[in-house]
Amino acid sequence: MHCLNVELGERSYPIIIGSKLLGDSQYLLPYIRGQQICIVTNETVAPLYLQQLLKGLSSFDKVDVVELPDGESFKTLDTLNRIFDTLLEQRHNRTTTLIALGGGVVGDMCGFAAACYQRGVDFIQVPTTLLAQVDSSVGGKTGVNHPLGKNMIGAFYQPRLVLADMDTLTTLPDREFSAGIAEVIKYGLICDEPFFSWIEKNIDALLSRNPQALAYAVDRCCRDKAEVVASDEREAGGRAILNFGHTFGHAIEAVQGYGRWLHGEAVAAGMMMALELSRLQGDVDDDLLVRVRSLLTKAQLPQQSPADMTVDHFLQAMRVDKKVVDGKLRLVLLRALGDAKVVDDTPREKVIEALKNCGAK
Amino acid sequence: MHCLNVELGERSYPIIIGSKLLGDSQYLLPYIRGQQICIVTNETVAPLYLQQLLKGLSSFDKVDVVELPDGESFKTLDTLNRIFDTLLEQRHNRTTTLIALGGGVVGDMCGFAAACYQRGVDFIQVPTTLLAQVDSSVGGKTGVNHPLGKNMIGAFYQPRLVLADMDTLTTLPDREFSAGIAEVIKYGLICDEPFFSWIEKNIDALLSRNPQALAYAVDRCCRDKAEVVASDEREAGGRAILNFGHTFGHAIEAVQGYGRWLHGEAVAAGMMMALELSRLQGDVDDDLLVRVRSLLTKAQLPQQSPADMTVDHFLQAMRVDKKVVDGKLRLVLLRALGDAKVVDDTPREKVIEALKNCGAK
Repeated sequence: MHCLNVELGERSYPIIIGSKLLGDSQYLLPYIRGQQICIVTNETVAPLYLQQLLKGLSSFDKVDVVELPDGESFKTLDTLNRIFDTLLEQRHNRTTTLIALGGGVVGDMCGFAAACYQRGVDFIQVPTTLLAQVDSSVGGKTGVNHPLGKNMIGAFYQPRLVLADMDTLTTLPDREFSAGIAEVIKYGLICDEPFFSWIEKNIDALLSRNPQALAYAVDRCCRDKAEVVASDEREAGGRAILNFGHTFGHAIEAVQGYGRWLHGEAVAAGMMMALELSRLQGDVDDDLLVRVRSLLTKAQLPQQSPADMTVDHFLQAMRVDKKVVDGKLRLVLLRALGDAKVVDDTPREKVIEALKNCGAK
Repeated sequence: MHCLNVELGERSYPIIIGSKLLGDSQYLLPYIRGQQICIVTNETVAPLYLQQLLKGLSSFDKVDVVELPDGESFKTLDTLNRIFDTLLEQRHNRTTTLIALGGGVVGDMCGFAAACYQRGVDFIQVPTTLLAQVDSSVGGKTGVNHPLGKNMIGAFYQPRLVLADMDTLTTLPDREFSAGIAEVIKYGLICDEPFFSWIEKNIDALLSRNPQALAYAVDRCCRDKAEVVASDEREAGGRAILNFGHTFGHAIEAVQGYGRWLHGEAVAAGMMMALELSRLQGDVDDDLLVRVRSLLTKAQLPQQSPADMTVDHFLQAMRVDKKVVDGKLRLVLLRALGDAKVVDDTPREKVIEALKNCGAK
């Protein structure tokens, strides 16, 4: 079992990573203050892991469950309201604890519900996908989508605990697993060159879901993320590097319709676009792109724009991205492998060239 | 012009109170960071004060307006979404500033929209009702109602500025004005005995809307509230005294249907219930109730339960109140005039007796 801490003053919290954590009450109990619990999960995860989680919570008076439909297309204010309905119908009070059991969508919605219910109650992340374990469950970004933009409605709200059980990855569909690998590669690229080299050496072990390799990678990604988040909780500056590949990726998700491309898939293609742009700006050389492409190919991740997207689609969608400040498009590019920078004066024609080189029409 | 500061560290902000403030850009401009502004108002206030406010904002590139329907019954997630629609359609980014022009409902919704839009943008309160000026615009409580409970979905989120223009009170309907007087009386009761005596001496001047008397009262209420809020921003403890009369009042609002009783009217009746309960507990004597009743009568405010409400209606509605912690009903009672306390062990039969004495069936 690995344990690390996200250092955010009075909002600090631990991340516990290991096997056989789910049914073991000792990990959860110290972080539950009251007598009420509401588990938020979805129709796919519930049949697999809900009973195990409930076993560890048998000592509580009241454990309710909200089972949401599965998928990014349900990450809406309407679905969020179903959580509030249950909390109010079941008379949950300010001392209740919400537990997110599922992937990024469940975690983001459960966290946002916790941020808003009675102006804020406790919540715990129990991420069951690789993407959620290495990225979305850590750092306190919560929210829902709007038809006009991803994650446009939300809050910075930190969990009391993240409990990442490696065993839940055994049932993860290959496509979802690969989507998580995209974010793992991201950490190497933006801030951790030694980890990037480790991934290159261990990509086969990761893809065959070797538990030790996975636990190492999750731990390393969480440490990298915790450090970035601790230095800039509300994304005033440095935290933005975590969005490497995401501005392009969000455009793909928005134009394709949420859910058609998985988030990690869109990020994979988006990272190639950001790398291509970094190359055009003279910051990284072709060799790095070859190395990243090789990893993405092994993980069966996309490296190009969807065939039906034009440059205009991208530019239009990116205009509403949260990274736009006073009309300037803010992009995360690489200075070098393991060294990302935030840039808001990239020439428009270079962005267009990079998009075209990556298959946008 | 009066100016005071709400001291909340990096979230501190000024309250400016006076006349002819609305159309004067010098008050707003220092608190607007970007080039985008979105004014949230309602169909009643817009025809009266929107043009004046816009006059002071003529130097900005982009000023959008969201006009909501008027009334507590529209304080919902659905109405909130109309604000997000406009912000996204008009491509507002993280540097935008939302301005709430209106009463408590507009302020609560605009503030909550600001808390959630792109995980938090700036907002300014321009309260145009007495209730909003003395209470709801100060302190950072934002949110919307749920069919099962008032203000159950929301955030603690502080404005950058509160601009209270006394001139907007000249057009306030009598019933709304009286509702605000209920909250003014509340401050005297819970924490400011000298102010309570001042209100008794100046109630006629207040009710005739004498501008000097009003400015004094608004300033005094805001100072009292600022002090309470500064000591307990997120209502972990002491701030709860601001809810004097509100637990009973919320029950009235919920059972009657939001909007049939104005918030201040429900608080007036709720304060009499809390006072009666304090009297039954032996903490205050009948003389104080007589004094409060005299003020409420002059202001034409209700002092009794709605005729159609039973004791069970109250107990049922109060069970979901945010002041319920682990099954215990938390009530604000008076130790003495100007000295409120939070109590969570009031005997149920005393609560019932107080409700009956105040007209509940």
